[in-house]
Amino acid sequence: MRNIDQNTITPAFLARLTNCGNPRLQQIMTSLATHLHTFAREVALTEDEWMQGIEFLTATGQMCDAKRQEFILLSDTLGLSMLVVAQNNAKPAGATEATVFGPFHVTDAPLVEQGADLSGGAPGTPLFVDARVVSADGSPIADAEVDVWQADDDGLYDVQRPELGDTRRARGVLRSDAQGRVCFRSIAPTAYPVPTDGPVGRMLLATGRHPWRPAHVHFLIKAAGFETLTTHIFREGDEYLDSDVVFGVRSSLIGDFVRHERGIAPDGTSMSGPFFTLAQTFVLARAPD
Amino acid sequence: MRNIDQNTITPAFLARLTNCGNPRLQQIMTSLATHLHTFAREVALTEDEWMQGIEFLTATGQMCDAKRQEFILLSDTLGLSMLVVAQNNAKPAGATEATVFGPFHVTDAPLVEQGADLSGGAPGTPLFVDARVVSADGSPIADAEVDVWQADDDGLYDVQRPELGDTRRARGVLRSDAQGRVCFRSIAPTAYPVPTDGPVGRMLLATGRHPWRPAHVHFLIKAAGFETLTTHIFREGDEYLDSDVVFGVRSSLIGDFVRHERGIAPDGTSMSGPFFTLAQTFVLARAPD
Repeated sequence: MRNIDQNTITPAFLARLTNCGNPRLQQIMTSLATHLHTFAREVALTEDEWMQGIEFLTATGQMCDAKRQEFILLSDTLGLSMLVVAQNNAKPAGATEATVFGPFHVTDAPLVEQGADLSGGAPGTPLFVDARVVSADGSPIADAEVDVWQADDDGLYDVQRPELGDTRRARGVLRSDAQGRVCFRSIAPTAYPVPTDGPVGRMLLATGRHPWRPAHVHFLIKAAGFETLTTHIFREGDEYLDSDVVFGVRSSLIGDFVRHERGIAPDGTSMSGPFFTLAQTFVLARAPD
Repeated sequence: MRNIDQNTITPAFLARLTNCGNPRLQQIMTSLATHLHTFAREVALTEDEWMQGIEFLTATGQMCDAKRQEFILLSDTLGLSMLVVAQNNAKPAGATEATVFGPFHVTDAPLVEQGADLSGGAPGTPLFVDARVVSADGSPIADAEVDVWQADDDGLYDVQRPELGDTRRARGVLRSDAQGRVCFRSIAPTAYPVPTDGPVGRMLLATGRHPWRPAHVHFLIKAAGFETLTTHIFREGDEYLDSDVVFGVRSSLIGDFVRHERGIAPDGTSMSGPFFTLAQTFVLARAPD
């Protein structure tokens, strides 16, 4: 096919997919190219704008490394991540809802014991979490893997602090006990801006958006026979609950972080200053047979 | 806004653009996000597929460097580049048509004199080009900048040969003379596959597409008072003219590469073996006032 113009390119492209041996891939490429082409026609994209787009995507890829995933951040801030999470996690009534994964998970978080302090010295007001992992009928799920990660009082994850090197802090992986319980000490999460020193930050600035996420703790919970749950627990009262830059807030995920001015912490520690407690139940949906 | 699902995410995203001070950017982001979201819903994109997409885009960005632009290659092979070129280059009747820019242009090509051999020793059958740059009424355009680049007989551009370092060959920039002429020696272009060792190559393989481009020489022609022309001249008879992997072939851009078995070349050189000649006129459109 020759002399392709801005309209005939779409059928010409689709005709090239006829030898694709993977029907699902063909379906995805068909929809993707059709929407990409329609977008470019609809806005009458100029050559300069196209090149700006190429440069933006290139810079986004080049900002990624083992500690930073700028394309996930782009997907998050464009609302794509929450869309994909929502359409793949229609939990049964009563099950804890899912939300976005975010760009700050790592696969080498330390394994920690029940009751441990996983803050690792990260700055923040102490927080004592008493969580339970249960099935829809309320029965405990033992030996669930509970992966926790969060930002510190400066709004930074460990991986955002070059001075820490590969040291992990304010994250850890626990196993639920026979009662489905997971108890640990950490720090109270605070609201923070997503990283604004890269292409996504420039996009947010150029489009007049703030970069803030309401305070939250991430949980990734896996248990045999149950659907994996990727979620957060947010702090009630946070000023960004209604304008989360990644669209991730669900009313059912707002936890009750109780502030105490001083006293005996749940683990028996005598606290001379403020601390928080959080009791939270996670209800996992059964995996399909 | 809370409890956003796969449908309400789109209006929620668009509501975030109300403080965008740049109406054109707002228009582009509105269309882009709407199509991106519709695509993800239409194919019911799964979380695994989403992650594969994130990894694909990341790898594409990380394949880019000063000598390789994998995102341009992706745009080219998805038909987006030809779409954007077509809708921005509706040339008046008689003007030479534009086609895709491609990923192999460099900005530091050598300036060469009229009649020079710009092959720089690149392997290939000699080619003698006699080009003219004229306006729509046929009058010559003097002092036009004519930037030429092409692959060699192995189907490789200089920048694809690590052993060459920063040496430039089979490319150069000339100035048209008072008659609008640009004469140079180079080599006959051959069909070649686009680079298949990166993400775009994997995409082509997975979708059952060949990676070939028909033989061509690139031209980027700039002259004061005229629209810049980005184009190729293709070789008649090439087996890939109807299936160019980047959709760039236009009938009007197929040149007459005349093969000679031996004899006196246009520059007076006595040739004991085969060579080609190409006479080509480029008609530039006047720039808008």
